[in-house]
Amino acid sequence: MKAVLIICDGMADRPVPALGNLTPLEAAEKPTMDLIAREGICGLMYALDPGIPPGSDTAHLALLGYDPYQVYTGRGPFEAAGAGLELRPGDVAFRANYATLDKGGLIIDRRAGRVPPTQRIEDAVRKIKLPVKFLFKNTVGHRAAFVLRGRGLSAAVSDTDPHETGKPVQPCKPLNQTAAARKTAKIVNMFTQKVRKTLANHPENLERASKGIPPANILLLRGAGVVPYLEPIQQKYGISGACVAAAALVKGVCKLAGMEVIEVEGATGNVRTNLKGKIFATIDALQRHDLVLLHIKAFDELSHDRKAQEKKNFIEQVDKHLAELLDKADFLVLAIDHTTPIELGEHSGDAVPVAICGPGVRKDDIQRFDERSCAKGGLGVIRGRDLLPLLLNLMGKLKKFGA
Amino acid sequence: MKAVLIICDGMADRPVPALGNLTPLEAAEKPTMDLIAREGICGLMYALDPGIPPGSDTAHLALLGYDPYQVYTGRGPFEAAGAGLELRPGDVAFRANYATLDKGGLIIDRRAGRVPPTQRIEDAVRKIKLPVKFLFKNTVGHRAAFVLRGRGLSAAVSDTDPHETGKPVQPCKPLNQTAAARKTAKIVNMFTQKVRKTLANHPENLERASKGIPPANILLLRGAGVVPYLEPIQQKYGISGACVAAAALVKGVCKLAGMEVIEVEGATGNVRTNLKGKIFATIDALQRHDLVLLHIKAFDELSHDRKAQEKKNFIEQVDKHLAELLDKADFLVLAIDHTTPIELGEHSGDAVPVAICGPGVRKDDIQRFDERSCAKGGLGVIRGRDLLPLLLNLMGKLKKFGA
Repeated sequence: MKAVLIICDGMADRPVPALGNLTPLEAAEKPTMDLIAREGICGLMYALDPGIPPGSDTAHLALLGYDPYQVYTGRGPFEAAGAGLELRPGDVAFRANYATLDKGGLIIDRRAGRVPPTQRIEDAVRKIKLPVKFLFKNTVGHRAAFVLRGRGLSAAVSDTDPHETGKPVQPCKPLNQTAAARKTAKIVNMFTQKVRKTLANHPENLERASKGIPPANILLLRGAGVVPYLEPIQQKYGISGACVAAAALVKGVCKLAGMEVIEVEGATGNVRTNLKGKIFATIDALQRHDLVLLHIKAFDELSHDRKAQEKKNFIEQVDKHLAELLDKADFLVLAIDHTTPIELGEHSGDAVPVAICGPGVRKDDIQRFDERSCAKGGLGVIRGRDLLPLLLNLMGKLKKFGA
Repeated sequence: MKAVLIICDGMADRPVPALGNLTPLEAAEKPTMDLIAREGICGLMYALDPGIPPGSDTAHLALLGYDPYQVYTGRGPFEAAGAGLELRPGDVAFRANYATLDKGGLIIDRRAGRVPPTQRIEDAVRKIKLPVKFLFKNTVGHRAAFVLRGRGLSAAVSDTDPHETGKPVQPCKPLNQTAAARKTAKIVNMFTQKVRKTLANHPENLERASKGIPPANILLLRGAGVVPYLEPIQQKYGISGACVAAAALVKGVCKLAGMEVIEVEGATGNVRTNLKGKIFATIDALQRHDLVLLHIKAFDELSHDRKAQEKKNFIEQVDKHLAELLDKADFLVLAIDHTTPIELGEHSGDAVPVAICGPGVRKDDIQRFDERSCAKGGLGVIRGRDLLPLLLNLMGKLKKFGA
């Protein structure tokens, strides 16, 4: 039995005046999604608790059966894992920005002109020596991930990013009285000094300066988090899984859950993403895995940008591509990680529709996949962490609890 | 964004034969409540867990977003707070009854003839010296609140109230082997002795005796509970709140949750309560607060007294007054703390209907506010502790968990 878990990021919405008080899902022509609803069992879902606006990371943890309130330690570890760093539980991961210091040591650009430094700069940083092992990688744009590994480290340390320009890099301070926090802060400060020394006259920065591009001559760290231990889904449920996604946070959650993260060329997370390539990669991954998580991001971006008509259009565009999946897996689950109301431009804690289609489901009478139709479905109201067990139960993958 | 949370105490019911097997809500003409349902999103709610009959105190804790199973320590602390005592977490609160002892020290009236002692008696009790600080206040009728404050106290002590006449005041006993419980029991017994000495020949008691009124010459204590720490809603949710209620337990929960408790003249908690004044106070409080909790009590009393027609009539009467609120707040939430079936005369664990009306809600197709209509609503089935997060989510007051 094979299943595809389709997660449409932020696709759910509230009634939108510009769409005649329909939600984009209610307004869109989406025969494939409606078919999944019609042939399946539908319901409403809160990724976390009712009313609580979920992040992408916490929502995906829940949708993979973990309790985010137990395992979530901040976005840093998931972003670093999503960027491809091979993390271990206990590592301390930071988010990093390349920035520009003036000669007096004040930050004049927190994003180094948003011009990404190359591999040469990354390599130079990697060659720095610290008293503990560390990992470092450029990610997207001016961003990077920095990870400390070793015994006696702690994530209870402050940011070196002052979060505004005109200030020097902040010293990293321990946030509690433990030796681990003090040690970690000391190592971070050592790293900051060495980065500054290493990058000050790096050839690439001299080139950037000659072209009028702000040099990437410092790294600002923030959001320290300990890499949590997630029991791999292979072990937790006896299934193998893969993830087809562009968003680093989603890839990171899947990676730390022990899933294969499949990179698709042209998968950008925006409306021009390579949908065809992602669908193809999903079908291909079904050859090797029980479960493939297909994540489509741009609904959320369109809501953040408050584009109602474009969100509706993108739903229709995605719907066409999803038709390719209809006969490729035993189970199709159509889910959403959270509502992102266009009127709000941010994640909200409203419920989302969900549908499960496949052999043995108690098909209900719901005809359309949208917020208000699915409210009357046979699944009732579930939590995000219930979804994977419900699917695996149908797939015959769960063991009885009790005798 | 402003909201009124209307809580109609015990308004939900089971089908009543005398009403043609309709519930009072189903039988009543209540255009305002139905309008809130029609314009809003409806559902069913269990204040605690499905089937568990809630108390007024535990239900209101849940409706304000607290977990009663975590924070509830008995009704004493909430009653004392509702009576206006300024409590601190860790205080040990008792419920107290004025009672009448005969000359031999046996209780002959557990309620001192139900004639309330005056301020003079209260003042005399307050002047008693104990090894720790204490608070004392007459509340309603023959009732009072007694609170011990200090280090090393415990609520694990027995009642001094024997709960029947013809017996002496019981010695307070420690209920576990801790020094705190022993110390508390000792102080309580000292208090009992001093109360007896102080009130034996108090002028007011001599007057009462001369009029044939049983003297209020002893205090019986029961229901010791530690005042719990409730994170104030201001801090927990970033909102300010007020409460318009007559019932001491409800006022106490709101007070300990950091809300302003507004006293309304003529608010009695029975069918002759000053509904107009309570509505006016609610509208006035909206000027200063994000959330106003309006509690209306008498439905519950009418169920306890098994008065079906009167309960239906009171629903209709309240409905007329609620019309005044329709344009006064962004959100109206119509809720019930628990079912009180007329046939039972007590709180039950049946679900109650709930409706939320305001901008952005996914209006469903429910036309009437009652137990069976709302069961088909877009909210599905929620718990009491989900209600405030669901409302605050719509008000844009909740922070995202995760990134």
